[in-house]
Amino acid sequence: MPFVTVQIAKGHSIEKKRQLAQAITDALVATMGTKPEWVTVHIDEFERENWAVGGVLHVDKHGGRHVEKGV
Amino acid sequence: MPFVTVQIAKGHSIEKKRQLAQAITDALVATMGTKPEWVTVHIDEFERENWAVGGVLHVDKHGGRHVEKGV
Amino acid sequence: MPFVTVQIAKGHSIEKKRQLAQAITDALVATMGTKPEWVTVHIDEFERENWAVGGVLHVDKHGGRHVEKGV
Amino acid sequence: MPFVTVQIAKGHSIEKKRQLAQAITDALVATMGTKPEWVTVHIDEFERENWAVGGVLHVDKHGGRHVEKGV
Amino acid sequence: MPFVTVQIAKGHSIEKKRQLAQAITDALVATMGTKPEWVTVHIDEFERENWAVGGVLHVDKHGGRHVEKGV
Amino acid sequence: MPFVTVQIAKGHSIEKKRQLAQAITDALVATMGTKPEWVTVHIDEFERENWAVGGVLHVDKHGGRHVEKGV
Repeated sequence: MPFVTVQIAKGHSIEKKRQLAQAITDALVATMGTKPEWVTVHIDEFERENWAVGGVLHVDKHGGRHVEKGV
Repeated sequence: MPFVTVQIAKGHSIEKKRQLAQAITDALVATMGTKPEWVTVHIDEFERENWAVGGVLHVDKHGGRHVEKGV
Repeated sequence: MPFVTVQIAKGHSIEKKRQLAQAITDALVATMGTKPEWVTVHIDEFERENWAVGGVLHVDKHGGRHVEKGV
Repeated sequence: MPFVTVQIAKGHSIEKKRQLAQAITDALVATMGTKPEWVTVHIDEFERENWAVGGVLHVDKHGGRHVEKGV
Repeated sequence: MPFVTVQIAKGHSIEKKRQLAQAITDALVATMGTKPEWVTVHIDEFERENWAVGGVLHVDKHGGRHVEKGV
Repeated sequence: MPFVTVQIAKGHSIEKKRQLAQAITDALVATMGTKPEWVTVHIDEFERENWAVGGVLHVDKHGGRHVEKGV
């Protein structure tokens, strides 16, 4: 019954989330021998004004761009 | 000082949340002997496109229905 | 598929945890109409040197007592 | 690589969040000797209808006021 | 800067964790275009007496077996 | 009622944790106007075999050293 939380920046398409949930589930199945139906994936999106690295908010680093690739 | 996080699908009424917070708090008091004022409950709602079981997003399973009972 | 995390102090017996998991699950069923088998409960125990209120660690407040009732 | 999650009520300005992220990062640097660029801060905002103490939702306690100081 | 938390039962070998962390990271890279060095994976292990589905602790369901495959 | 979770590597002394909890609480008071007694800090320690950046476990990067400064 693995439970996976993925924290990523807001703004990705449903299609991207679909692929992400599948790929994470596959990763559990391939490495741990988990049954796919046991895996729950929660995509927990953050706003760029709510995430900071080195004390600097993303919104201050990355300006107005809504989705930076892969963040 | 128990801290309880309840992750449920988005879309429940305030009245439902009111009952949920009270019932969770009562459960702690009844079983652990906690004082009610020590219990914090955080209801953490997820969007149906952000939750997957078996690699399939809820939004793909449950179509357009906004709130399925008890999810 | 509600997922509930209960953060409590370390040191409670399995019997107490058994009652807690059941009572939390019942609370979801009674208030939200959830099916019991959809409810996951995670008991996340903290050490008293890892939890502070008002800037003071529990271990400094509550001394050597290992389990205070209901914390 | 410390990862810090701050759960606060929704409604604070970006300027406040900017100060908060910096102050939390400074706290890690000053006490643990962490390099600032290793510190990630996630501000996780909650709605007042999703947070309860003593079984009572904030929205029922604090009425319509959108931001109470320091919550 | 995706941050991934994987909650699994305690008792897996370091080699399994090594494979899991790599596979999760690869899943992010392949689907989201994330740079590998941006991905943090946290494996958060739970004891079987601290996890319940349907109100029943794992330790009561799965007896004394320490690691069930893929849980 | 801010709730702060600090995820750091295992192995820091109680004295360090004491300073950390105080400094985090002070940061909330100074920037958000929170009352100190409203702030809860949870120090959530991770084992070096349970944390990976770029797909590589800390234990594989940092060898046998038990506490690296500020991680």
